[in-house]
Amino acid sequence: MWHYDAPLRDMRYVIEDVLGLPAQWAALPAFAELDADTARQVLEEAARFATEVLAPTNAPGDLEGCSFADGEVRTPRGFKEAYRAFVEAGWPALACDPAVGGQGLPQVLNAALYEMLAAANHAWTMYPGLLHGAYECLHLHASDELKQRYLGKVVSGEWLSTMCLTEAHAGSDLGLLSTRATPADDGSYRLKGTKIFISGGEQDLTDNIVHLVLARLPDAPAGTKGISLFLAPKFLPDGSRNAARCDGIEKKMGIKGSATCVMSFDNATGWLVGEANRGLQAMFAMMNAARLHVALQGLAHAQNAHRNAVVYAHERLQSRAPVRGESKGSADPIVLHPAMRRTLLRQRVLVEGARLIAYEAAHLIDLAEHAADASGRERAQEQAALLTPVLKSFLTDNGFALASDALQVFGGHGYTHDWGIEQCVRDARIAMIYEGTNQIQAIDLVVRKLAADGGRKFAAWLEALAAAVPAQARHAAATLGQLRRLGELAADVVTASRGDAELPFRVADDLLRATALALIAQAWARADAVSSRPEHEGDAFHAAKRDSAAHCFAHLAPEFEHALAQARAGWMPFAPVALAETA
Amino acid sequence: MWHYDAPLRDMRYVIEDVLGLPAQWAALPAFAELDADTARQVLEEAARFATEVLAPTNAPGDLEGCSFADGEVRTPRGFKEAYRAFVEAGWPALACDPAVGGQGLPQVLNAALYEMLAAANHAWTMYPGLLHGAYECLHLHASDELKQRYLGKVVSGEWLSTMCLTEAHAGSDLGLLSTRATPADDGSYRLKGTKIFISGGEQDLTDNIVHLVLARLPDAPAGTKGISLFLAPKFLPDGSRNAARCDGIEKKMGIKGSATCVMSFDNATGWLVGEANRGLQAMFAMMNAARLHVALQGLAHAQNAHRNAVVYAHERLQSRAPVRGESKGSADPIVLHPAMRRTLLRQRVLVEGARLIAYEAAHLIDLAEHAADASGRERAQEQAALLTPVLKSFLTDNGFALASDALQVFGGHGYTHDWGIEQCVRDARIAMIYEGTNQIQAIDLVVRKLAADGGRKFAAWLEALAAAVPAQARHAAATLGQLRRLGELAADVVTASRGDAELPFRVADDLLRATALALIAQAWARADAVSSRPEHEGDAFHAAKRDSAAHCFAHLAPEFEHALAQARAGWMPFAPVALAETA
Repeated sequence: MWHYDAPLRDMRYVIEDVLGLPAQWAALPAFAELDADTARQVLEEAARFATEVLAPTNAPGDLEGCSFADGEVRTPRGFKEAYRAFVEAGWPALACDPAVGGQGLPQVLNAALYEMLAAANHAWTMYPGLLHGAYECLHLHASDELKQRYLGKVVSGEWLSTMCLTEAHAGSDLGLLSTRATPADDGSYRLKGTKIFISGGEQDLTDNIVHLVLARLPDAPAGTKGISLFLAPKFLPDGSRNAARCDGIEKKMGIKGSATCVMSFDNATGWLVGEANRGLQAMFAMMNAARLHVALQGLAHAQNAHRNAVVYAHERLQSRAPVRGESKGSADPIVLHPAMRRTLLRQRVLVEGARLIAYEAAHLIDLAEHAADASGRERAQEQAALLTPVLKSFLTDNGFALASDALQVFGGHGYTHDWGIEQCVRDARIAMIYEGTNQIQAIDLVVRKLAADGGRKFAAWLEALAAAVPAQARHAAATLGQLRRLGELAADVVTASRGDAELPFRVADDLLRATALALIAQAWARADAVSSRPEHEGDAFHAAKRDSAAHCFAHLAPEFEHALAQARAGWMPFAPVALAETA
Repeated sequence: MWHYDAPLRDMRYVIEDVLGLPAQWAALPAFAELDADTARQVLEEAARFATEVLAPTNAPGDLEGCSFADGEVRTPRGFKEAYRAFVEAGWPALACDPAVGGQGLPQVLNAALYEMLAAANHAWTMYPGLLHGAYECLHLHASDELKQRYLGKVVSGEWLSTMCLTEAHAGSDLGLLSTRATPADDGSYRLKGTKIFISGGEQDLTDNIVHLVLARLPDAPAGTKGISLFLAPKFLPDGSRNAARCDGIEKKMGIKGSATCVMSFDNATGWLVGEANRGLQAMFAMMNAARLHVALQGLAHAQNAHRNAVVYAHERLQSRAPVRGESKGSADPIVLHPAMRRTLLRQRVLVEGARLIAYEAAHLIDLAEHAADASGRERAQEQAALLTPVLKSFLTDNGFALASDALQVFGGHGYTHDWGIEQCVRDARIAMIYEGTNQIQAIDLVVRKLAADGGRKFAAWLEALAAAVPAQARHAAATLGQLRRLGELAADVVTASRGDAELPFRVADDLLRATALALIAQAWARADAVSSRPEHEGDAFHAAKRDSAAHCFAHLAPEFEHALAQARAGWMPFAPVALAETA
């Protein structure tokens, strides 16, 4: 039966053995007091919450879903109690600034926490999932008065928050949004417009809700340069109900316990956050962290699907396996069948490799804020900016695809509700869409970041990735070969883009995928070097890591080659797609 | 909004222009009286039924689902009326033998009919979907008495039928099944056992249900050589209720309007069909046709998802497109964005190429029965046997994957119920599992068929495929190159298998995929040759076909190369997957 095991040993392996983060924390004043034992305890407590409190609400929450009546949303049974326990344990404040009530722990621990939460119950995790973004937005951009009123409650999680961006006609293209903000005499604004797809726009978990709303001031320039950010609470400071109301919730493929709301702002009172017409910049201040958290949802689904598939594949007996020497009876566990091993090993390589990259990205976000020297902060910021669209896209693609591969391991049983994997597939699908579709991520990487500066930062990043592979590592040459060929492709894209402005858009998805696969290879080269140390000889855990690394370089290398070739095919323009009659 | 347009023009293009089937029918005595006009009328009537009667029941049927109480199943509203109209119009008998009440039309028309039915409502199509298999099973193997009693009702569709194969512990491995059949004095048998995943095991569409049940006779040999086939009706000839009862229905990811039943046979009365202990052979007599029909479900979902995505991509305006000369306003239809074109063109190439191959497979099944000379029948049978696992696997993989790609075109809207595409994704997922999982199909192709005869039939098939490409065709050289390299891989697999019995299992999925992609290329090479004829110059329909062919050879060729390389990576064994502790 469906089960969530928090992969604590693998998390420690990444954090301690491969990335060596405890030593790095010691060198950063912000985290100098954090030791490996404390970090372990945080992870163990988080695992306890995820497995014991949250995971039991996952399947019932999917069946029950949210209900809506008279502007009110009821979340599934148990969600409110789980949220209360979450707040009481102080989890929302984990990675917030101690100066405003936070615990000041590294982003990587917050990343591990959210990986576990999303794996245990993705729908529930949508509610606190926006807290950290709202925290950063307010912390960096809000007036002292707004901070005084709202920041503490957001840090503690006493009040939840939303991000009101999308409108019916403005999704990927926020420049089209039309919600209006009119100045009032008291320095506040009146917001008027309708927002859709607002996660947690209404809920019964907290007494108040802090809406962050993108809207246009009168006479604002058209497009993205005329968008401002406002804070509009469900209940105003005087206790009265603000004119921000939920008009309905969506019926969705998955994450059914998460209320996806249509929100109407009917001259709702709000206050400007940051500068006028610079709302997108204020909101995107926290974009790297927000995207990383969506990437972690993909990782969470892939990991949990893989783990459950491994357990099932050991229990389910069907047919004799052709594996020499291991077949035992008239029917073997399907884990012995090559078709199943192929699926499970590919999952393992992609899941564990992805965790290494994602946790390193979380550390880069910390370095971008806390590194001692300005150049170190800038380099970390640059690398995080390149890495996050890759992670968001690749890990959420895998969250869905690897969950579907796991469903296949369960066969017909996987298609029924009873085994949990079909919910995992449905829930995982959304992460490819929100927080910028995966196609938008690829454009961000290739058009906005790679091509924009002639490939300089991307090339510097590849050099840093190559430098991080120990020269004596077994898979060093293969890794450097991939990084080199990726660099050649990127340089060719930059050059060709000068004569063909559409080209980077055509190759974006494949170049992103090639980048991701090279990152996976680089991660496994480093992990293999660690697990090949003499002290790990004979240890089954490390032997499995070496097997995974070998599998990556033998069986995933063709996928990297394919991504390169597919990108090169993008030199050839696409034909038009007409709305032809088929009848 | 979600809509089903039957792709009649594309169907005629395949049947008439590319495959030239009307001329081939004229040469076969069984179809000599069929002309192109009659075939067109059949397709048009089928399209009318699918779009006007069936499609409106699809979304409501998903929301309502089937309900179960006291052994009875209620299908969603409208299903019964649609089925009555289906029977009254004579559709069940379309491709049955006129000698037993059938209309004797070619399998390709039945294939087109079922493509349209599955696209309009996959769940509903599950009920009549097994009729043709039951017809073939009874027609070929049943005693005259059983035929007398049941065949006519099955041909007309007055009674529906089931295939009771799977048991809880016996899915892919039917050799493990344990349902018992004990001889009674009157020549009948008493069946005892529990079957699961029985589509239409109970329903309210027909007065009686004809269950075909696999079971073991006393003293039957173990494994697959001790399985016999029985017919056990819901109501016995004397009108009494047989002891074959539905104990419950599954809650599933999709096809919710199809009742997936647990069936208990508690000394139910049944009669032997065919020879004792040769039940699998009797049931697999109709395997090529049954697998082809599942493949058509994949095609149907991919086609319908593609069509709806194309329509949406023309309506939805977001951001200026970087396509030179076509961008018009502050926001363009997303069909002009390269990321969307890439998705839509790949779908188009895979959907239309797949239809060509699938309809040709249907024609091969006809040739295997009706070709004038025995060698022609044998050759057609051999080719159909190789082709059907490829189609079943590749088309159903694509049914799910391309539907998911279409969902991405719809963005956040696609994740909600309102747009229909999320149902399409959920419904499509099952076809990768049933009628033999796609991994079992690959083993069937590579282990049972390719390796079993040292590659002789496979090589002969590739030669026939090469010979069917006109020498002067624009894409002839590229196609022949793919077929040659596929042949080299297959030969290498055969050779290597002699020293490594596990190898064909390791490479099976990738070799199947390479085969499928080579077939797609071969299909487009032929279609391009037709659409490049001088009389089609300036015709937009044929220009789009030439564009699709060019897209296939420019943008899908890397996928073929990848499948080859991935198969070659399978020379390297897989590591074991232990049930390691993660905590």
